[in-house]
Amino acid sequence: MTGAPRRKKYLGAVDLGGSKILSVIAEGDGRRVGEDRRSTSAEEGPELVLERVVDSLETALANAGLQQGDLAAVGICSPGPCDIEAGVICSAPNLPGWRDVPICRYVEERLDVVTRLENDANAAAVGEHVYGAGRGCRHLIYFTVSTGIGGGFIIDERLYRGATGVAGELGHMTIDPRGPVCGCGNQGCLEALASGTAIAARGEELVAQGGSALLAELAQEQGKLTAATVAQAAGQGDMACRGIIRRAGYYLGIGFASYVNIFNPQIIIIGGGLVKVGDLLLAPARAEMEARAMPEALEAVQMKLAELGDYAGAMGMVALLREGMAA
Amino acid sequence: MTGAPRRKKYLGAVDLGGSKILSVIAEGDGRRVGEDRRSTSAEEGPELVLERVVDSLETALANAGLQQGDLAAVGICSPGPCDIEAGVICSAPNLPGWRDVPICRYVEERLDVVTRLENDANAAAVGEHVYGAGRGCRHLIYFTVSTGIGGGFIIDERLYRGATGVAGELGHMTIDPRGPVCGCGNQGCLEALASGTAIAARGEELVAQGGSALLAELAQEQGKLTAATVAQAAGQGDMACRGIIRRAGYYLGIGFASYVNIFNPQIIIIGGGLVKVGDLLLAPARAEMEARAMPEALEAVQMKLAELGDYAGAMGMVALLREGMAA
Repeated sequence: MTGAPRRKKYLGAVDLGGSKILSVIAEGDGRRVGEDRRSTSAEEGPELVLERVVDSLETALANAGLQQGDLAAVGICSPGPCDIEAGVICSAPNLPGWRDVPICRYVEERLDVVTRLENDANAAAVGEHVYGAGRGCRHLIYFTVSTGIGGGFIIDERLYRGATGVAGELGHMTIDPRGPVCGCGNQGCLEALASGTAIAARGEELVAQGGSALLAELAQEQGKLTAATVAQAAGQGDMACRGIIRRAGYYLGIGFASYVNIFNPQIIIIGGGLVKVGDLLLAPARAEMEARAMPEALEAVQMKLAELGDYAGAMGMVALLREGMAA
Repeated sequence: MTGAPRRKKYLGAVDLGGSKILSVIAEGDGRRVGEDRRSTSAEEGPELVLERVVDSLETALANAGLQQGDLAAVGICSPGPCDIEAGVICSAPNLPGWRDVPICRYVEERLDVVTRLENDANAAAVGEHVYGAGRGCRHLIYFTVSTGIGGGFIIDERLYRGATGVAGELGHMTIDPRGPVCGCGNQGCLEALASGTAIAARGEELVAQGGSALLAELAQEQGKLTAATVAQAAGQGDMACRGIIRRAGYYLGIGFASYVNIFNPQIIIIGGGLVKVGDLLLAPARAEMEARAMPEALEAVQMKLAELGDYAGAMGMVALLREGMAA
């Protein structure tokens, strides 16, 4: 005699970013069956954002024709340092006012389902490894190049977290000891030279020097000057803006070469919003990597673009939940 | 009925360096029972050096009151890239004329015992992990700072070799993109800024500029100018030489900070001949690391001096042989 058939269980994953929340409902094999996207509205503070995370998961469930009891587990990834054992977001540069927020406990109480937390760049590395550009690779490095530069290592097919869970600060390798001051306080980090923030800062300097009438005009039209503005001006042929982006690519390539020499990875996967800029950024990065890396390590590595777009973090959480349930 | 009692088996390990050969005979628990040291005399070419490796092992055995049949396995470590699967030294910067030398096959044929090969810096990392300053640590980085700068990673208590076995080129992280040309062809590697070779090169420049009468005099007396000469002049109070060594320490610290941010290790172990220079080199290294590394990773890491001296490589081979026999 067998009991009533058990209902199929699904996994819920949330990528909680500074500007948007993406929730995904997936089957055990990673197939997505529902999702929800909404603005984070981080300025409203942690409590309302936590509420919104739960609403987003519930909406994603409803979109899949499911309900709360169908969830086997929830995974959340967020920017900045977090205590994954305790399920607490310690701080988050893009979530003002977030300090030691016990997000897992909140979601567990609201949805009555075990909830797990991970840093978003680490989660994206896992997502690309399991479902994206790194499928089948044993050792890989994932870079996300957007407002900041982060990433994660997959070593022996597993996420490497370091001694206290803060490994993988790939953007905080010093590239030029006398370079610009970084958000972390150091000088000349990769992030301070090649991130979206760095590109925007060089654009601001260019405008201040009267170096690009086009960039000044676009910035005025848009009411802001971001890396996208610099890329737009570069796309319209502005030589100084093209130079800024090529320069960021040059620094990226210096960083890639060091990572290749140190880690001897099979692939380097590059994701994040700045990848859309394309070859103007990536061709000098590749050229500089090839010029600087040691031949033995260089011949072993492939450079690939990320495949999962903004699903990488959420799909990484799906993979980590599966792994956790298998363990 | 049982057969005749089996004799106790011992492990043989050889650290084959550019200037000296060190052979060690150890018990399974790592206790050393015999050893032999002799000059490599690398200028005589691979065949005579291979002969000398075997002689050295036989002498170490005899010194322990043992004979060939008492060896369970032999491990050899050597500088430069090697194919550990095939047991072939691909090339070795300090062993002129060495190109694809099948050292394991040679020793196996001569001593009738299974023989294993590893890169010397990797072996030293394992040695310090199992028997030295890194005992009990899960994640550590070992640096050897001498003529060159190398090292190895222990991740999850195991040596990390990378996708094709060439990981751990810790000296070939770019520290200053416009810095001096490195032996590897890149510009501004840690090795080109902080190794013994780099210190000697800065010393040569200083003498050429007439910047230190003392250093010029010492170099003339000794018939050569090495990092040790610069350290000696620094020890006698020469301010320009003290500046050269402090500068190397500054660059070391920049590298350490990047490794701390990337890897979040429990400890950084520093070995190699230059460690003897002491605080003149290590104090600025520590200060720069502390100024540049991210607080979360910095508070997790300890900086320790290596404990095994020049036994690190050989003892690492003992540990790897044990691990291989257990597997």
